[in-house]
Amino acid sequence: MDRIPILRMGNFLLVTIQVDLYDRLALTLEADLVQMVKKTSAKGVLIDISAVTIVDSFMGRIIGNIASMSKILDSETVVVGMQPAVAITLIELGLPLKGVHTALDVERGMNLLKSMIDDFDDEDIEEDPDGSLAE
Amino acid sequence: MDRIPILRMGNFLLVTIQVDLYDRLALTLEADLVQMVKKTSAKGVLIDISAVTIVDSFMGRIIGNIASMSKILDSETVVVGMQPAVAITLIELGLPLKGVHTALDVERGMNLLKSMIDDFDDEDIEEDPDGSLAE
Repeated sequence: MDRIPILRMGNFLLVTIQVDLYDRLALTLEADLVQMVKKTSAKGVLIDISAVTIVDSFMGRIIGNIASMSKILDSETVVVGMQPAVAITLIELGLPLKGVHTALDVERGMNLLKSMIDDFDDEDIEEDPDGSLAE
Repeated sequence: MDRIPILRMGNFLLVTIQVDLYDRLALTLEADLVQMVKKTSAKGVLIDISAVTIVDSFMGRIIGNIASMSKILDSETVVVGMQPAVAITLIELGLPLKGVHTALDVERGMNLLKSMIDDFDDEDIEEDPDGSLAE
């Protein structure tokens, strides 16, 4: 297995992490994901880690990196399905995943992303590039 | 990794197969999936196999089994993201995946499932259990 598949679902990208993220795989995921955000103009990235039972500082850092990279590409990251033991480990490792939103499951994560995008759209209404509006 | 995560998305379940489906893992997936279809009353199951590059007769049979089991629980199965090489191998193995719908990617698969469910709803309009209709 040389790469983790990234699924496109409307405006969002979904990644399910099922295997141990050793160095090369994690870096490939980072690179693939930012490419995919650019290519699909995705507004949100959902990372499902429900199958992850063991986490180390490397993986914590990778998740933080992905969130930061997506953020500067104008896309929000939500991590879903974290096991309680993983949450305990992350905090004990001193990795509070700042800037990463979390939700209990994919459905809640998807709703969170939708609400974030709606809020953003309300605040920042885009102007019509042609200066004309369809009636 | 002792089980493959099953993600619930509205009326559908999504499974991404990223690892080799050896015997025990495949049987666990079968069992988990039918349990989950029952528990969530899911109307459709999406199986993403875009990360699968090698397929054997066992895996072909497992996919067929999952589709048949879901079918008798009133849920449709769509396999998405099949690699061309996998399609070649399945046919050469004599496994045309009868009863399994396929689509190129998750989005198309989701649309296919939605259209199948809509068709079904049109054919078979449920009666109101109370015998009264809200106005």
